[in-house]
Amino acid sequence: MNYQKIIDELYKEIIDQENLGNVASYIPELAKVDPHKFGICLSTIDNEQMSIGDADEKFSIQSIAKVFALSLAYKNADGELWERVGVEPSGTPFNSLVQLESDLGIPRNPFINAGAIVICDILQSQLKDPKTELLDFIRMVSNNPTIDYSSSIAESEKSQGFRNIALINFIKSFGNIKNEINDVLDLYFNLCSIKMSCKELSSSFLYLANHGVEPISNNKILNGSQTKRINAIMQTCGFYDEAGEFAFKVGLPGKSGVGGGIIAIYPNNYCIAVWSPKLNSKGNSYRGMNFLEIFTTKTKLSIF
Amino acid sequence: MNYQKIIDELYKEIIDQENLGNVASYIPELAKVDPHKFGICLSTIDNEQMSIGDADEKFSIQSIAKVFALSLAYKNADGELWERVGVEPSGTPFNSLVQLESDLGIPRNPFINAGAIVICDILQSQLKDPKTELLDFIRMVSNNPTIDYSSSIAESEKSQGFRNIALINFIKSFGNIKNEINDVLDLYFNLCSIKMSCKELSSSFLYLANHGVEPISNNKILNGSQTKRINAIMQTCGFYDEAGEFAFKVGLPGKSGVGGGIIAIYPNNYCIAVWSPKLNSKGNSYRGMNFLEIFTTKTKLSIF
Amino acid sequence: MNYQKIIDELYKEIIDQENLGNVASYIPELAKVDPHKFGICLSTIDNEQMSIGDADEKFSIQSIAKVFALSLAYKNADGELWERVGVEPSGTPFNSLVQLESDLGIPRNPFINAGAIVICDILQSQLKDPKTELLDFIRMVSNNPTIDYSSSIAESEKSQGFRNIALINFIKSFGNIKNEINDVLDLYFNLCSIKMSCKELSSSFLYLANHGVEPISNNKILNGSQTKRINAIMQTCGFYDEAGEFAFKVGLPGKSGVGGGIIAIYPNNYCIAVWSPKLNSKGNSYRGMNFLEIFTTKTKLSIF
Amino acid sequence: MNYQKIIDELYKEIIDQENLGNVASYIPELAKVDPHKFGICLSTIDNEQMSIGDADEKFSIQSIAKVFALSLAYKNADGELWERVGVEPSGTPFNSLVQLESDLGIPRNPFINAGAIVICDILQSQLKDPKTELLDFIRMVSNNPTIDYSSSIAESEKSQGFRNIALINFIKSFGNIKNEINDVLDLYFNLCSIKMSCKELSSSFLYLANHGVEPISNNKILNGSQTKRINAIMQTCGFYDEAGEFAFKVGLPGKSGVGGGIIAIYPNNYCIAVWSPKLNSKGNSYRGMNFLEIFTTKTKLSIF
Repeated sequence: MNYQKIIDELYKEIIDQENLGNVASYIPELAKVDPHKFGICLSTIDNEQMSIGDADEKFSIQSIAKVFALSLAYKNADGELWERVGVEPSGTPFNSLVQLESDLGIPRNPFINAGAIVICDILQSQLKDPKTELLDFIRMVSNNPTIDYSSSIAESEKSQGFRNIALINFIKSFGNIKNEINDVLDLYFNLCSIKMSCKELSSSFLYLANHGVEPISNNKILNGSQTKRINAIMQTCGFYDEAGEFAFKVGLPGKSGVGGGIIAIYPNNYCIAVWSPKLNSKGNSYRGMNFLEIFTTKTKLSIF
Repeated sequence: MNYQKIIDELYKEIIDQENLGNVASYIPELAKVDPHKFGICLSTIDNEQMSIGDADEKFSIQSIAKVFALSLAYKNADGELWERVGVEPSGTPFNSLVQLESDLGIPRNPFINAGAIVICDILQSQLKDPKTELLDFIRMVSNNPTIDYSSSIAESEKSQGFRNIALINFIKSFGNIKNEINDVLDLYFNLCSIKMSCKELSSSFLYLANHGVEPISNNKILNGSQTKRINAIMQTCGFYDEAGEFAFKVGLPGKSGVGGGIIAIYPNNYCIAVWSPKLNSKGNSYRGMNFLEIFTTKTKLSIF
Repeated sequence: MNYQKIIDELYKEIIDQENLGNVASYIPELAKVDPHKFGICLSTIDNEQMSIGDADEKFSIQSIAKVFALSLAYKNADGELWERVGVEPSGTPFNSLVQLESDLGIPRNPFINAGAIVICDILQSQLKDPKTELLDFIRMVSNNPTIDYSSSIAESEKSQGFRNIALINFIKSFGNIKNEINDVLDLYFNLCSIKMSCKELSSSFLYLANHGVEPISNNKILNGSQTKRINAIMQTCGFYDEAGEFAFKVGLPGKSGVGGGIIAIYPNNYCIAVWSPKLNSKGNSYRGMNFLEIFTTKTKLSIF
Repeated sequence: MNYQKIIDELYKEIIDQENLGNVASYIPELAKVDPHKFGICLSTIDNEQMSIGDADEKFSIQSIAKVFALSLAYKNADGELWERVGVEPSGTPFNSLVQLESDLGIPRNPFINAGAIVICDILQSQLKDPKTELLDFIRMVSNNPTIDYSSSIAESEKSQGFRNIALINFIKSFGNIKNEINDVLDLYFNLCSIKMSCKELSSSFLYLANHGVEPISNNKILNGSQTKRINAIMQTCGFYDEAGEFAFKVGLPGKSGVGGGIIAIYPNNYCIAVWSPKLNSKGNSYRGMNFLEIFTTKTKLSIF
């Protein structure tokens, strides 16, 4: 299938339409981004890459990075971590505290903030130098030693992170945080600060389309079962309370971030990354969701 | 792949293990079922069928029938119905009223009871003789004119259906029921009363594995996009508050019923039906879940 | 203290101010009431009565009648009924189903709809001819044989009563309704259909200001402990999710109805009834709340 | 009425019965208290004092101190503070975060932890030296310059205060905290650390039984309206999700603390303080609740 042609056509179609929604504005690093940026890159497990628009420009990938953290924690811990974080969709916004109360401090899944914070706590216990080792892991799966934390974004997140501080303290009150709160939060805020381009993103997550093996280096990141399971969690929980909508319209496992990025995985085939900063009311990229819906409809490629 | 061999081996493995959970007991027709029944049938889109155990015995398919109702309503209405029922996982038990209140009478998805009731209301508006036409549709997709409602089960459901009567009245109070409550409930309780065997079930849902086309008659039940979307909803919402767990462990779209049946779809390939009456704490067949987890792990066949 | 003078002054003050809010409109009998009706009557335990405005006009007392039902059930059953209905404020609107789910079918208190329905079920079990005997009781405490159910209001309520039908079926699903649903609902809708004037209301509830004794006939309706407890429940639960506000501003136990009536009890002294049909956003009479706040502030009479 | 005689008799009666419940154990200062301590003191507005048992022994008054903080904030701010904290019962446990989410950071009332934290934030804004001035105020209303914060309790609370840190950060995320989180928490934890005896407590809160005037010094602490309103809030919200039960059984406004203390106000008459460290399942003193129920029943003194 000629992906490049379809991507080009859709890009032109969508860029002429009205760009709805709002750029995330709770920290200056997100608020000041040009709202009309629009980039797409599709990388196949055969090492082909097709892109258009602002596909080379780095942006704040935010929650997409939670997939890296989960991958590393799962690689190290295997099944144990599922006693401390669930795999069920939450049915509520990403930073809700309500369910945590009835679920006694066990977050519904690793992609809501509460769950990602518990994953960071698990990494904090697993690793000697968590911040460095997590970054090394991300560089390794990405084949890209230049990827880095953004200390300015991490600092901004920290200064506005009242809800996340509330979450971690609440979870700690149930005994599901084992390390120092400030250390775990520092790792979490750094994780969310990473900047990558669509090109980098789409090639970094190819291991999830390739049974856990990074196809360029042939490094085995995860085993097949772990890979399948992370894809399953992305499918059911990757888009907060719009996860069903994404499965329904796009039909691929994926993960979004409030920076306007989205990745989607077509197992055995490709990973696609889209970036457009304006967010819909659920906090997912308006144009990104729109593009992926039409793209999978046109290509008739979906897991379902 | 030699499915028959794997099925046989797994059947023998599981039937020797302890059979945990409890048979649904809220109506006599379910309570009196032999808890040790265990049947499996896999039907491929190439018209092959492999089975073992009690695969020919009819049982109460209960909520699995909601997939038929949704298919017919979707076929008739296309997009309109999504204004009256959502596609998001609920994160709560199947008969919960809580979310309906905050969602103002719009059920989260068509597979929780509230959503299936709204689907029945839509059918009641679409069809001249809803009860007959719905049954005709089910017979048509099943290639089986003997499938029928069980009036004894329907009556039993009705006599114990306080929660469902509460649901429909609650939804009506928000204006999301258009027909007479008793008519809609009658259709709903009849829908849930259908009895089928694993063999019948696995061949009846082949259209969902075959882009909407029933492979024996070549009848087009749904278009490709509709098929994909129903599969997506099964994936995210087919197992109540265990939907994530099923995606995680089994990795196929599916639907369960409190009669102990489960169907799962492997798009472009097969539909598998499993039946074992004992239910786990979430209301899904203990052995059914167990079998499908090991089966997809062994065959390494999953959509993820 | 010259109550009549204060009542007259306040009446004039308030009638000149803007009359905010909306008349209840879910049934025609409420919707067609003149929104500018305004009546007040204060009756003392010494058989004095002071009134102004439309104090002689009968109106639909709606939920105020729940106090009669509770009094009769409590008189007959004493402590037993508190196993089936609580005495805690709900913190939610009067017809919410949410708490019922987590509280397993035990309504928070006898003044939310769910609780009043359970009280009607208790009366249905206690009495041979519940509808007649409840009316007899109300006539007895009111010293007024002309008080009657309004069959037109009861019918209207029934035809719009989806939420209440939902509630009773939901409670029944938890086993906390013992009689036929239709019988209990019939009693409940009749209870809510009673029409009385401010004069009738304020004298009918004098037993709650007089340790359980109706002061004209000297009939003992309740014992002192029961009386105190009903007053306590009115104080904490009499105004739905505005109960705290009423205690805060008015400082007397009381009960409101969506017909725009409010009664308030000053133990050892008086019962006052106010009627003005326009309701605030919480469903309580706008002018009624307003009048009682200023009245208790001016008279410096409050239980606190 | 001979209060001393009734108190003596009841004390003897109760001390012979089984002492149920559990001492609060989340900090060592509470856990190590002798569970069989039992003290009672009643102080009248005519400066009489009747006591028995461990009425002279200081204990951690915990949340009872929230009444002091509210009194001072209300005295300084009058009506303004009610825009930032409500007056409605919560219907949920004292440290729940659920309602805060739907109420957008406005705590239901000033006696749940969230509300008391907002009151501390208001004090932090009102006062130059909040910690000192709050203590001065408490000493003034108590006529007792020896009352002091317990730094060991405050430190213990802080080290175990994850839920409260979660609450304040959550409220801050809605914009309803104006000062530095650490400063507000320091004030809050110190407030909760105060130790007083039953004798001290019962005389300290006499201003609430005396229209806002401290009866020994004749100091006007609050005006009549403010006093009435604080009593009303204690009545509807003073006992977490057992407030209705307390109104029902005891019929007086009151406030409890997890140290096992309870105060109750009989307006125009007295303030009574009871202390017994074992708590019932709702977190209120088992013997304290028991004593007050029988005491008000025997004396037939209740506001209702």
